[in-house]
Amino acid sequence: MKEGYIGILTSGGDASGMNATIRAITRSAICNGYKVKGIYRGYEGLINDEIRELTTEDVSNIIQRGGTILKTARSKDFETAEGREKAYEVMQKEKIHTLFIIGGDGSLTGARIFAQEYDVPCIGLPGTIDNDLWGTDLTIGYDTALNTIVECVDKIRDTATSHERIFFVEVMGRDAGFLAQNSAIASGAEAAIIPEDQTDTDQLEEFIKRGFRKTKNSSIVIVTESPTGKGANYYAERVKKEYPQYDVRVTILGHLQRGGSPSAGDRILASRLGCAAIQAMMEGQRNVMIGIRNDKVVYVPFAEAIKKNKPIDKSLITVLNELSI
Amino acid sequence: MKEGYIGILTSGGDASGMNATIRAITRSAICNGYKVKGIYRGYEGLINDEIRELTTEDVSNIIQRGGTILKTARSKDFETAEGREKAYEVMQKEKIHTLFIIGGDGSLTGARIFAQEYDVPCIGLPGTIDNDLWGTDLTIGYDTALNTIVECVDKIRDTATSHERIFFVEVMGRDAGFLAQNSAIASGAEAAIIPEDQTDTDQLEEFIKRGFRKTKNSSIVIVTESPTGKGANYYAERVKKEYPQYDVRVTILGHLQRGGSPSAGDRILASRLGCAAIQAMMEGQRNVMIGIRNDKVVYVPFAEAIKKNKPIDKSLITVLNELSI
Amino acid sequence: MKEGYIGILTSGGDASGMNATIRAITRSAICNGYKVKGIYRGYEGLINDEIRELTTEDVSNIIQRGGTILKTARSKDFETAEGREKAYEVMQKEKIHTLFIIGGDGSLTGARIFAQEYDVPCIGLPGTIDNDLWGTDLTIGYDTALNTIVECVDKIRDTATSHERIFFVEVMGRDAGFLAQNSAIASGAEAAIIPEDQTDTDQLEEFIKRGFRKTKNSSIVIVTESPTGKGANYYAERVKKEYPQYDVRVTILGHLQRGGSPSAGDRILASRLGCAAIQAMMEGQRNVMIGIRNDKVVYVPFAEAIKKNKPIDKSLITVLNELSI
Amino acid sequence: MKEGYIGILTSGGDASGMNATIRAITRSAICNGYKVKGIYRGYEGLINDEIRELTTEDVSNIIQRGGTILKTARSKDFETAEGREKAYEVMQKEKIHTLFIIGGDGSLTGARIFAQEYDVPCIGLPGTIDNDLWGTDLTIGYDTALNTIVECVDKIRDTATSHERIFFVEVMGRDAGFLAQNSAIASGAEAAIIPEDQTDTDQLEEFIKRGFRKTKNSSIVIVTESPTGKGANYYAERVKKEYPQYDVRVTILGHLQRGGSPSAGDRILASRLGCAAIQAMMEGQRNVMIGIRNDKVVYVPFAEAIKKNKPIDKSLITVLNELSI
Repeated sequence: MKEGYIGILTSGGDASGMNATIRAITRSAICNGYKVKGIYRGYEGLINDEIRELTTEDVSNIIQRGGTILKTARSKDFETAEGREKAYEVMQKEKIHTLFIIGGDGSLTGARIFAQEYDVPCIGLPGTIDNDLWGTDLTIGYDTALNTIVECVDKIRDTATSHERIFFVEVMGRDAGFLAQNSAIASGAEAAIIPEDQTDTDQLEEFIKRGFRKTKNSSIVIVTESPTGKGANYYAERVKKEYPQYDVRVTILGHLQRGGSPSAGDRILASRLGCAAIQAMMEGQRNVMIGIRNDKVVYVPFAEAIKKNKPIDKSLITVLNELSI
Repeated sequence: MKEGYIGILTSGGDASGMNATIRAITRSAICNGYKVKGIYRGYEGLINDEIRELTTEDVSNIIQRGGTILKTARSKDFETAEGREKAYEVMQKEKIHTLFIIGGDGSLTGARIFAQEYDVPCIGLPGTIDNDLWGTDLTIGYDTALNTIVECVDKIRDTATSHERIFFVEVMGRDAGFLAQNSAIASGAEAAIIPEDQTDTDQLEEFIKRGFRKTKNSSIVIVTESPTGKGANYYAERVKKEYPQYDVRVTILGHLQRGGSPSAGDRILASRLGCAAIQAMMEGQRNVMIGIRNDKVVYVPFAEAIKKNKPIDKSLITVLNELSI
Repeated sequence: MKEGYIGILTSGGDASGMNATIRAITRSAICNGYKVKGIYRGYEGLINDEIRELTTEDVSNIIQRGGTILKTARSKDFETAEGREKAYEVMQKEKIHTLFIIGGDGSLTGARIFAQEYDVPCIGLPGTIDNDLWGTDLTIGYDTALNTIVECVDKIRDTATSHERIFFVEVMGRDAGFLAQNSAIASGAEAAIIPEDQTDTDQLEEFIKRGFRKTKNSSIVIVTESPTGKGANYYAERVKKEYPQYDVRVTILGHLQRGGSPSAGDRILASRLGCAAIQAMMEGQRNVMIGIRNDKVVYVPFAEAIKKNKPIDKSLITVLNELSI
Repeated sequence: MKEGYIGILTSGGDASGMNATIRAITRSAICNGYKVKGIYRGYEGLINDEIRELTTEDVSNIIQRGGTILKTARSKDFETAEGREKAYEVMQKEKIHTLFIIGGDGSLTGARIFAQEYDVPCIGLPGTIDNDLWGTDLTIGYDTALNTIVECVDKIRDTATSHERIFFVEVMGRDAGFLAQNSAIASGAEAAIIPEDQTDTDQLEEFIKRGFRKTKNSSIVIVTESPTGKGANYYAERVKKEYPQYDVRVTILGHLQRGGSPSAGDRILASRLGCAAIQAMMEGQRNVMIGIRNDKVVYVPFAEAIKKNKPIDKSLITVLNELSI
């Protein structure tokens, strides 16, 4: 067994597949002669020393579970210099030589700052349902969330069709439209309203005009949640006001998008990236996110991964438009 | 083949298992020598003569589908004497001698009035997710909705546990707490707020006080939707105001509770009641709802079924309290 | 806190909902002032003293999990007088005053003999997917298994319909046809072959003759597993031999029927019976199985519960025949 | 509207997502000014002229359904020169100018021969759960089958863990190990036996030796079906004979792997490839399979696609070995 420990934490919004990632990092580490410590409640737990060793049995039978056995939190303290100093001291005390962070954009930003200030090798794993990290084709949790949304919209369509209604269904994604765009295609929705497309409003107009001329007897529009308030309710109100003859309903899927047993795709992705993260450490990599591109593992420097301008494939908009005729 | 047709319609809010019911009535009728017509869009379609014959093939491969192939609607016209007269004339013209109505409280009320005014044998089948019809232990759609809610709450608990939050989850039920009470037990929620219990508010107080002394690190409260505005948002706001230290979230499950492939239980119930409805007709029954009580088919006069005071089993409240310690 | 402990074990074939039962017994016991010990691996673990205390946290977050956290086994030793004596001594040593057994027919038979030999209060809970215990309308695990089978047959029907084939699907049930009969109705299968009906063979003949005259382009027959070898393969071979023109396939669902997250119905049943079991103990009941009849909790003496002649509702055969036309 | 029709058929083993593909081709064609005919029962239906026009409504509400609304079959007649001549004549008569074939290896082989003999533009779409077509990273139906297997193994693990058993689970794949290898990783199985690895037997030896030294109390081995009889039963018998102390069980998942509602991934893939197929036709492409490589649409000549030596990623074997410690 090698000296010291690797440390694993999950941070930010939880995503299904985080447990599969924890399992993969832990087992791959142990398999390669490292000892492992789990850090509870993200950076907050690192600062507060909520840490205990993880064995291969501790991660048994968790690959299929949603959430994260290590808990997660957003840490205000870690945004301060004092917090990060404390975190560094705890790492020394706990003999943690390398930190593995499973999380999204904010979590990797924290890791990047930490690694710049202290000589601490950090390795990130993309755990977010939003799929908005640059440099990786997929993030852990995205495929599960997509499937959950599609199953929900399938149910909503049963009732939409039975009643001949227009439904606006709001999904997560923050400032990224991957979930909305792809769930709209997969659920056979009539339109998607996504932040990447600045002409949202006109799209709605156009959808409404096209839609109302159509023989279709029900419509579903998927809307990305919006920090500025232009979510599903906003569009529903507009339609109700301008077209009072239509029966309009709203469903906001909310937090159920984060949980649930991970899909096969997310479990395989988590397993591959977890093993690759240990491999990266052994190769001396640091301050990189482990990603997947063209089905190959890649190392993405933190600075690039968090640029956040991962583009959506515009050809998918055409697919959606053609198929919702 | 006998003279004339039986007519089937679905009315009111859709419920999973309505298609299984349509299939059962249709096939049992044909099996016993009757011809069948499907009436589209509920009473509205009866008035507007949106009717066509159903064969045994027309109901093939629908037992597993949510929604209703006959569509459903709420009909303002059928609430008027003119509307009902029109409906009666259409029935004569279409040679429909007996009407089978699949729906809830409002739909059966409509049938009752119609049957009082015209000499039309009506037979009702309890199709509603709310389980609020008197005289039947179960309604078609209830078991599926319950399972859907429980699956959603399982997902929400993954994220609630990971983040140590209080979630208020709003479910359907109108003025009946069956869905909330039973989904709370089945999902391991900490409390249910139901309309049958006039001390809701105090229950919340008590839950909060008990809950905050507990070692539990997350809580889920199931709340019945409320026409008077005391739904999940109301309780969440109260907790946020009085206990600002807690991270409170709301999820309103909405229409996805109605759809989806019916559970085994709902399919069997629908099949049994559908066959029993044809049997009832052959026995000369009229103006009754076909229900199930103690696992036996029963005939419930419309007047009784719509009394709407079906009691909730209070012993279940004790079960929930004991198990959420 | 009261003196001593109650002991809980799961025995025989596992059933989904066993964990929900363990949780309910444990929490209801603690809520009423009792301490709880979990016995691992059924009677075998009782003999070998594989026992540890259970707290309310130990049963957190297990209501939704298949299998049993206490493991289960079939015990040869407990069938011997020496084994039972050893078991009794361990109970004394561990200060277990009442034994709660979750299991099926064989497990309750063991409990009955044990309780006759030693002055040990035993309370049984019906945990078996087969639904074959007399005196209770439902057993824990049955509803989940039924739903699992129906979901599988839904998938098989997709491919059966696409290919125009006859499928024989074998399900569990030992000498009881509840799963086969009810899953056949719920999945829209064409026939069920069940042990309760001595005329199986002729039924198949009749089905084949009827079936081949029909316009249906695919058929699914549900067959109960058979200790005497007349399972799905037997019937498939017969059809292949006598009607070589047909494309016949077999699927044996096997052990996946036992596992999976329990249905809402099974979780509620488990919760109610678990609480009722503690209530029964407090009332001084012993050597009874806690059952449900007409939606009310009942106490069934072991001797009655294991008579094993619980009848299947013959009216369901008519339902299946009418609906598979 | 353009002259003539495009024709669509599904052929070979059905795969979930075929309906989504039919929908996408149909709607994209109509959207681009083409008329569409559906050919029933694959090449057999082409020969027998079982053909009718498809409108955009005909493919409504099928994106979520397993199986294929066009049915599928394996055609002996199409393997003969006479059969193909007949097929060509029917195409002329039905004014079908381009043929779209959704299927696997055998179906594309048929298309290739047909296109060599007659001047008929053929465009293939990879529809098979086996993922064994060269030139495309994914085939339609593979992701759904993978998820179905993983859900089944999750259930089996519940009972495996409860009983401390070794399970051999047999999955489809013919001569390709994609399903076995990836489902083993995703379900946390202990080993996979795949045809690509000539050292199967030794792997089992090694697994058994490693496995039996381990502290693990249950094991699941995923085995690819084998035309030569070395499937799950073969391995189970070997273990039973050599290690009689172990409780060994077998589950053969069978045809339920083909059906079920397609996953989000398969629906998106089907939608993209369907639209791309019409695009390819408009660009004058012929006798190519539409595939996806590195998330981009590619055209793969039939001759390449059916070479059948698509390699499995050997790094995944390492992932499985590390994670099953």
